[in-house]
Amino acid sequence: MSTDEAHPSLALDETVHQRVRLGILAMLSEASECTFTTVREELELTDGNLSRHLRVLEDAGLVEIRKGYDGRRPCTWLALTRPGRKALRAELAALQRLVDRLRGIQPEDA
Amino acid sequence: MSTDEAHPSLALDETVHQRVRLGILAMLSEASECTFTTVREELELTDGNLSRHLRVLEDAGLVEIRKGYDGRRPCTWLALTRPGRKALRAELAALQRLVDRLRGIQPEDA
Repeated sequence: MSTDEAHPSLALDETVHQRVRLGILAMLSEASECTFTTVREELELTDGNLSRHLRVLEDAGLVEIRKGYDGRRPCTWLALTRPGRKALRAELAALQRLVDRLRGIQPEDA
Repeated sequence: MSTDEAHPSLALDETVHQRVRLGILAMLSEASECTFTTVREELELTDGNLSRHLRVLEDAGLVEIRKGYDGRRPCTWLALTRPGRKALRAELAALQRLVDRLRGIQPEDA
Protein backbone atom coordinates (compact mmCIF):
# COMPACT_ATOMS: atom_id res chain seq x y z
CA MET A 1 0.00 0.00 0.00
CA SER A 2 2.78 2.37 0.79
CA THR A 3 4.59 1.72 -2.49
CA ASP A 4 3.68 2.14 -6.13
CA GLU A 5 4.69 -1.42 -6.91
CA ALA A 6 2.04 -4.01 -7.63
CA HIS A 7 1.00 -5.92 -4.53
CA PRO A 8 3.17 -9.05 -4.18
CA SER A 9 0.10 -11.31 -4.05
CA LEU A 10 -0.52 -10.41 -7.71
CA ALA A 11 2.67 -12.26 -8.61
CA LEU A 12 1.21 -15.53 -7.36
CA ASP A 13 -0.10 -17.88 -10.05
CA GLU A 14 -3.30 -19.66 -8.95
CA THR A 15 -2.36 -22.78 -10.91
CA VAL A 16 0.75 -23.17 -8.78
CA HIS A 17 -0.33 -21.40 -5.59
CA GLN A 18 -3.39 -23.54 -4.79
CA ARG A 19 -2.51 -25.47 -1.63
CA VAL A 20 -2.74 -29.03 -2.96
CA ARG A 21 -1.04 -28.21 -6.26
CA LEU A 22 1.76 -26.40 -4.45
CA GLY A 23 2.20 -29.52 -2.34
CA ILE A 24 2.34 -31.74 -5.43
CA LEU A 25 4.90 -29.53 -7.18
CA ALA A 26 6.94 -29.28 -3.99
CA MET A 27 7.04 -33.07 -3.60
CA LEU A 28 7.96 -33.62 -7.24
CA SER A 29 10.75 -31.05 -6.98
CA GLU A 30 12.38 -33.22 -4.34
CA ALA A 31 12.56 -36.37 -6.45
CA SER A 32 13.13 -37.33 -10.08
CA GLU A 33 9.65 -38.84 -10.02
CA CYS A 34 7.02 -40.01 -7.53
CA THR A 35 4.23 -42.54 -7.83
CA PHE A 36 0.62 -41.40 -7.72
CA THR A 37 0.20 -43.43 -4.53
CA THR A 38 3.14 -41.83 -2.74
CA VAL A 39 1.86 -38.34 -3.49
CA ARG A 40 -1.70 -39.24 -2.54
CA GLU A 41 -0.58 -40.62 0.82
CA GLU A 42 1.97 -37.93 1.64
CA LEU A 43 -0.52 -35.16 0.88
CA GLU A 44 -3.47 -36.99 2.49
CA LEU A 45 -5.65 -36.82 -0.62
CA THR A 46 -8.28 -39.02 -2.20
CA ASP A 47 -7.71 -40.52 -5.65
CA GLY A 48 -10.29 -38.17 -7.11
CA ASN A 49 -8.84 -35.08 -5.50
CA LEU A 50 -5.30 -35.85 -6.63
CA SER A 51 -6.50 -36.71 -10.16
CA ARG A 52 -8.38 -33.45 -10.44
CA HIS A 53 -5.37 -31.35 -9.43
CA LEU A 54 -3.04 -33.39 -11.64
CA ARG A 55 -5.24 -32.66 -14.60
CA VAL A 56 -4.86 -28.92 -13.96
CA LEU A 57 -1.10 -29.26 -13.65
CA GLU A 58 -0.81 -31.49 -16.72
CA ASP A 59 -2.98 -29.15 -18.80
CA ALA A 60 -0.69 -26.30 -17.78
CA GLY A 61 2.33 -28.35 -18.84
CA LEU A 62 3.80 -28.34 -15.34
CA VAL A 63 3.64 -32.06 -14.60
CA GLU A 64 4.16 -35.16 -16.70
CA ILE A 65 2.09 -38.26 -16.02
CA ARG A 66 3.47 -41.62 -17.12
CA LYS A 67 1.54 -44.86 -16.84
CA GLY A 68 3.31 -48.21 -16.68
CA TYR A 69 3.81 -51.21 -14.51
CA ASP A 70 5.61 -51.75 -11.24
CA GLY A 71 6.19 -55.47 -11.60
CA ARG A 72 2.76 -56.64 -12.63
CA ARG A 73 0.88 -53.85 -10.88
CA PRO A 74 -0.24 -50.85 -12.94
CA CYS A 75 1.51 -47.75 -11.67
CA THR A 76 1.36 -44.06 -12.44
CA TRP A 77 4.49 -41.95 -12.18
CA LEU A 78 4.49 -38.20 -11.84
CA ALA A 79 7.34 -35.86 -12.64
CA LEU A 80 7.91 -32.14 -12.79
CA THR A 81 8.50 -30.75 -16.27
CA ARG A 82 11.06 -28.04 -16.87
CA PRO A 83 8.30 -25.36 -17.01
CA GLY A 84 6.90 -26.90 -13.82
CA ARG A 85 10.21 -26.45 -12.05
CA LYS A 86 10.43 -22.89 -13.34
CA ALA A 87 6.87 -22.12 -12.22
CA LEU A 88 7.54 -23.54 -8.75
CA ARG A 89 10.71 -21.49 -8.48
CA ALA A 90 8.78 -18.33 -9.44
CA GLU A 91 6.10 -19.13 -6.85
CA LEU A 92 8.69 -19.67 -4.12
CA ALA A 93 10.38 -16.38 -4.99
CA ALA A 94 7.03 -14.56 -4.91
CA LEU A 95 6.18 -16.16 -1.56
CA GLN A 96 9.54 -15.14 -0.17
CA ARG A 97 8.94 -11.54 -1.26
CA LEU A 98 5.54 -11.56 0.42
CA VAL A 99 6.91 -13.07 3.64
CA ASP A 100 9.83 -10.62 3.66
CA ARG A 101 7.52 -7.67 3.09
CA LEU A 102 5.33 -8.61 6.04
CA ARG A 103 8.11 -9.69 8.35
CA GLY A 104 8.73 -6.20 9.72
CA ILE A 105 5.06 -5.55 10.28
CA GLN A 106 3.79 -8.71 11.92
CA PRO A 107 5.46 -8.59 15.35
CA GLU A 108 4.89 -4.87 16.02
CA ASP A 109 1.23 -4.98 16.94
CA ALA A 110 1.02 -8.62 17.90
CA MET B 1 9.21 -37.49 1.36
CA SER B 2 12.48 -38.23 3.01
CA THR B 3 11.20 -37.42 6.48
CA ASP B 4 8.42 -38.78 8.66
CA GLU B 5 7.05 -35.30 9.27
CA ALA B 6 3.81 -34.26 7.61
CA HIS B 7 4.40 -32.46 4.33
CA PRO B 8 4.66 -28.69 4.95
CA SER B 9 1.85 -27.98 2.47
CA LEU B 10 -0.54 -29.68 4.90
CA ALA B 11 0.07 -26.83 7.34
CA LEU B 12 -1.41 -24.32 4.91
CA ASP B 13 -5.00 -23.26 5.63
CA GLU B 14 -7.05 -22.85 2.43
CA THR B 15 -9.06 -20.01 3.95
CA VAL B 16 -5.90 -17.98 4.36
CA HIS B 17 -3.73 -19.45 1.60
CA GLN B 18 -6.02 -18.74 -1.36
CA ARG B 19 -4.23 -16.10 -3.44
CA VAL B 20 -6.75 -13.26 -3.22
CA ARG B 21 -7.51 -13.84 0.46
CA LEU B 22 -3.81 -13.94 1.27
CA GLY B 23 -3.48 -10.62 -0.52
CA ILE B 24 -6.36 -9.11 1.45
CA LEU B 25 -4.97 -10.28 4.79
CA ALA B 26 -1.49 -9.09 3.83
CA MET B 27 -2.80 -5.62 2.94
CA LEU B 28 -4.82 -5.36 6.12
CA SER B 29 -1.82 -6.40 8.21
CA GLU B 30 0.00 -3.32 6.96
CA ALA B 31 -2.62 -0.81 8.09
CA SER B 32 -5.05 -0.34 10.97
CA GLU B 33 -7.81 -0.49 8.38
CA CYS B 34 -8.35 -0.13 4.62
CA THR B 35 -11.36 0.87 2.58
CA PHE B 36 -13.05 -1.68 0.33
CA THR B 37 -12.09 0.51 -2.63
CA THR B 38 -8.40 0.64 -1.75
CA VAL B 39 -8.20 -3.13 -1.42
CA ARG B 40 -10.19 -3.68 -4.61
CA GLU B 41 -7.89 -1.41 -6.60
CA GLU B 42 -4.60 -2.57 -5.08
CA LEU B 43 -5.47 -6.23 -5.67
CA GLU B 44 -7.04 -5.57 -9.09
CA LEU B 45 -10.36 -7.18 -8.20
CA THR B 46 -13.97 -6.62 -9.14
CA ASP B 47 -16.53 -5.63 -6.49
CA GLY B 48 -18.09 -9.09 -6.70
CA ASN B 49 -14.82 -10.93 -6.39
CA LEU B 50 -13.67 -8.94 -3.38
CA SER B 51 -17.09 -9.28 -1.72
CA ARG B 52 -17.05 -13.02 -2.17
CA HIS B 53 -13.63 -13.43 -0.59
CA LEU B 54 -14.48 -11.01 2.22
CA ARG B 55 -17.49 -13.10 3.09
CA VAL B 56 -15.25 -16.15 3.52
CA LEU B 57 -12.83 -14.18 5.68
CA GLU B 58 -15.61 -12.60 7.74
CA ASP B 59 -17.33 -15.96 8.26
CA ALA B 60 -14.01 -17.35 9.49
CA GLY B 61 -13.69 -14.41 11.89
CA LEU B 62 -10.48 -13.19 10.28
CA VAL B 63 -11.68 -9.83 8.99
CA GLU B 64 -14.06 -7.22 10.35
CA ILE B 65 -16.23 -5.23 7.97
CA ARG B 66 -17.52 -1.85 9.09
CA LYS B 67 -19.91 0.25 7.05
CA GLY B 68 -20.10 3.99 7.50
CA TYR B 69 -19.65 7.27 5.71
CA ASP B 70 -16.64 9.06 4.38
CA GLY B 71 -18.11 12.58 4.39
CA ARG B 72 -21.42 11.97 2.69
CA ARG B 73 -20.26 8.96 0.67
CA PRO B 74 -21.03 5.48 1.96
CA CYS B 75 -17.79 3.69 2.71
CA THR B 76 -16.82 0.20 3.84
CA TRP B 77 -13.79 -0.29 6.06
CA LEU B 78 -11.98 -3.55 6.46
CA ALA B 79 -9.72 -4.55 9.31
CA LEU B 80 -7.88 -7.64 10.44
CA THR B 81 -9.20 -9.21 13.63
CA ARG B 82 -6.83 -10.63 16.21
CA PRO B 83 -7.51 -14.21 14.97
CA GLY B 84 -6.94 -12.90 11.44
CA ARG B 85 -3.53 -11.58 12.38
CA LYS B 86 -2.71 -14.85 14.09
CA ALA B 87 -3.87 -16.88 11.06
CA LEU B 88 -1.80 -14.74 8.71
CA ARG B 89 1.23 -15.16 10.93
CA ALA B 90 0.75 -18.96 10.93
CA GLU B 91 0.43 -18.95 7.13
CA LEU B 92 3.60 -16.90 6.72
CA ALA B 93 5.49 -19.24 9.03
CA ALA B 94 4.23 -22.28 7.08
CA LEU B 95 5.21 -20.65 3.78
CA GLN B 96 8.65 -19.88 5.15
CA ARG B 97 9.11 -23.53 6.16
CA LEU B 98 8.07 -24.67 2.69
CA VAL B 99 10.38 -22.19 0.96
CA ASP B 100 13.26 -23.12 3.28
CA ARG B 101 12.72 -26.83 2.69
CA LEU B 102 12.86 -26.41 -1.08
CA ARG B 103 15.65 -23.86 -1.12
CA GLY B 104 18.41 -26.46 -1.13
CA ILE B 105 16.76 -28.48 -3.85
CA GLN B 106 15.70 -25.93 -6.41
CA PRO B 107 19.02 -24.71 -7.79
CA GLU B 108 20.73 -28.12 -7.99
CA ASP B 109 18.99 -29.46 -11.04
CA ALA B 110 17.89 -26.18 -12.60
